[in-house]
Amino acid sequence: MNNFTYYNPTKMIFGKDTISQIGKQIKEQGINKVLLLYGKGSVIKNGVYDKVVESLKSSGVQHVDFSGVKPNPVLSTVKEAIKAMKDNSVEAILALGGGSVIDSAKAAAAGFYYEGDVWDLFERKAMVNKALPIFTVLTISATGSEMNSGGVITNEAENKKWSFGSPLLYPKVSIIDPTIQFTLPENQTVNGAVDTLSHVFELYFDGTRNTDMMDELSEGIIRTMMKHVKILLKDKENYESRCEFTWSSTLALNGMNGTGRVGDWSSHQIEHSLSAFYDISHGAGLAIVFPAWMKYVQHCHVEKFERFAERIFDIKEGSPEEKGIKAIEKLKEFYKEIGAPISLKEVEIPREDLNKLAENAALLSPIGSMKKLYKEDILKILELCYE
Amino acid sequence: MNNFTYYNPTKMIFGKDTISQIGKQIKEQGINKVLLLYGKGSVIKNGVYDKVVESLKSSGVQHVDFSGVKPNPVLSTVKEAIKAMKDNSVEAILALGGGSVIDSAKAAAAGFYYEGDVWDLFERKAMVNKALPIFTVLTISATGSEMNSGGVITNEAENKKWSFGSPLLYPKVSIIDPTIQFTLPENQTVNGAVDTLSHVFELYFDGTRNTDMMDELSEGIIRTMMKHVKILLKDKENYESRCEFTWSSTLALNGMNGTGRVGDWSSHQIEHSLSAFYDISHGAGLAIVFPAWMKYVQHCHVEKFERFAERIFDIKEGSPEEKGIKAIEKLKEFYKEIGAPISLKEVEIPREDLNKLAENAALLSPIGSMKKLYKEDILKILELCYE
Repeated sequence: MNNFTYYNPTKMIFGKDTISQIGKQIKEQGINKVLLLYGKGSVIKNGVYDKVVESLKSSGVQHVDFSGVKPNPVLSTVKEAIKAMKDNSVEAILALGGGSVIDSAKAAAAGFYYEGDVWDLFERKAMVNKALPIFTVLTISATGSEMNSGGVITNEAENKKWSFGSPLLYPKVSIIDPTIQFTLPENQTVNGAVDTLSHVFELYFDGTRNTDMMDELSEGIIRTMMKHVKILLKDKENYESRCEFTWSSTLALNGMNGTGRVGDWSSHQIEHSLSAFYDISHGAGLAIVFPAWMKYVQHCHVEKFERFAERIFDIKEGSPEEKGIKAIEKLKEFYKEIGAPISLKEVEIPREDLNKLAENAALLSPIGSMKKLYKEDILKILELCYE
Repeated sequence: MNNFTYYNPTKMIFGKDTISQIGKQIKEQGINKVLLLYGKGSVIKNGVYDKVVESLKSSGVQHVDFSGVKPNPVLSTVKEAIKAMKDNSVEAILALGGGSVIDSAKAAAAGFYYEGDVWDLFERKAMVNKALPIFTVLTISATGSEMNSGGVITNEAENKKWSFGSPLLYPKVSIIDPTIQFTLPENQTVNGAVDTLSHVFELYFDGTRNTDMMDELSEGIIRTMMKHVKILLKDKENYESRCEFTWSSTLALNGMNGTGRVGDWSSHQIEHSLSAFYDISHGAGLAIVFPAWMKYVQHCHVEKFERFAERIFDIKEGSPEEKGIKAIEKLKEFYKEIGAPISLKEVEIPREDLNKLAENAALLSPIGSMKKLYKEDILKILELCYE
């Protein structure tokens, strides 16, 4: 196990009928005016917007609306939000949505106090020294952004989908009411499951050894998510399964699961290149990239893939290598079963683009900790994505 | 799953050679003078004291020594510590030790600002409204107090060993260097393992249903602790096993493992009566009480005990009831194997005292959530402790 520092001060309020608490929570922090950030209006349809506005009003918190955050959120929106925040002298941001909205809120919260171009924070040209307080009401469980300090934004002018973070960006309070996700389209539930599993895989299959306790936690999240996403695809209003889904999704990337290990994150980097160029959802991209990456790096830690095979898919027969290979196949079967794509063919990304994609993903190369990957490795992994 | 609020702002610094960071961490919070609270001198022998004092000095943090906190810490010591804190105008407490020292620090931190008798906070006659900041350097993993907001103190005049807590009592920063525990006497490692397992059992075997994700986490902690305590009893300086032991011990009771469920806590209440009257370690008492409690309540949630049997002891044969019974026996065998007592006979508590003990444990009855227990139930459980 590696040395680590763990710190996560987000207050998480979870369960049925909890959204009405948001106004009081914000007011308790001495905040009187917030930017209300959301996407393209699903929060109006599902009633979250009205509940939040009512709660803000009854607590005496003013709000300024800012809508239109897109999936795979872009830098230009962040900049517009920062302008709106300054123009209206808000004291905090309240994000209503999933990872796209919350990540945009984080970038805007940091950019609010930064005098240069907010993209500098992604290029590591500057650090976050101060940020507006962030509050969230989660409507799609996937990225874990509701309880961590990082985010991912696309600089659309430069085709860079990059991450950034700072301990100053933990949401002060996040609310998860799982019933809100009853009305999610099926593919968003699937993408959320794949995204969650991918976060766990990034942490579980890394270069670190001797991580028993965290491996147990990871395996628990994987089994819970795999079980309950299948229930939800048949019974989308199953409250208990929504609870298991949403909470395990948060736990996958709230820092705890990463304690004592470094994570790999090369599959995310490769996927970010896909969604920087194509209109493909992050979850779909990860479902394609991760099994290919696993095949490519399995030889680097055969015992870990064997453990994965035994503990997740109950595979007991065969050599350690064979078990790992079977487990990767089982994972692809699972993705197919829940309706996630498993090949770049399915999402119609042409082979002649692979070089460009590999180059993009390798901008910060080498990437990864299980195996350090350079452009030629990434190209081979992308080739495996056509199988 | 129940609705819940989770909040834990403790910064945890973990790993080899981390103790030297304590001075800087305290200074960063604007604190210039601390009460240095510890026990009977083991922190001097194992070198922790010197490392801490050096770190404080090099960061310009003054300290006032207060030693002599005993295992099963008592109210009179807490009151003396409060007096020393006021006399010396300290701005924070730094606890060096295990749960006894840290719990005493919490009581003193809360009592510092409370004008009445600090015991009022345990009797629920008053709430904690303000507390001095708490920092800890952990030297014995067992109670989880290094990353939670509660504590247990014995009012020796009234034979009450009671708990208290407040979100204001989370340590600001806790440091765990697992190497410090290399020199622990074997029985303290055993007690720490039993205490950790008991915390998980309290949360795992409660009255709540549909807690898959948390059950997975609990089972992960149980398996990790059971595996690594056995390694440590043969190889006490095994660093990786000390890491797994210490971190899983913290995770057992840092709040996360309790999300969505209420916990039972009657076994702790019963054990607290034992250690309020006799000089028995908390871990030893729990090793005796828990299997007896399990036998008494198994019928209330047969499926949970079956799950425990399958997932912890790989018991696949028999009816659900039989599996549960076998698992409880296996747990007793495990305790025996690691050298924990499994009967009140072994610790020489006379049967004629049982009524008094049951009465004491029932002071706040009914206790428990799996089954509400009254004095007569507690007496029956104590009888089972002689088997």
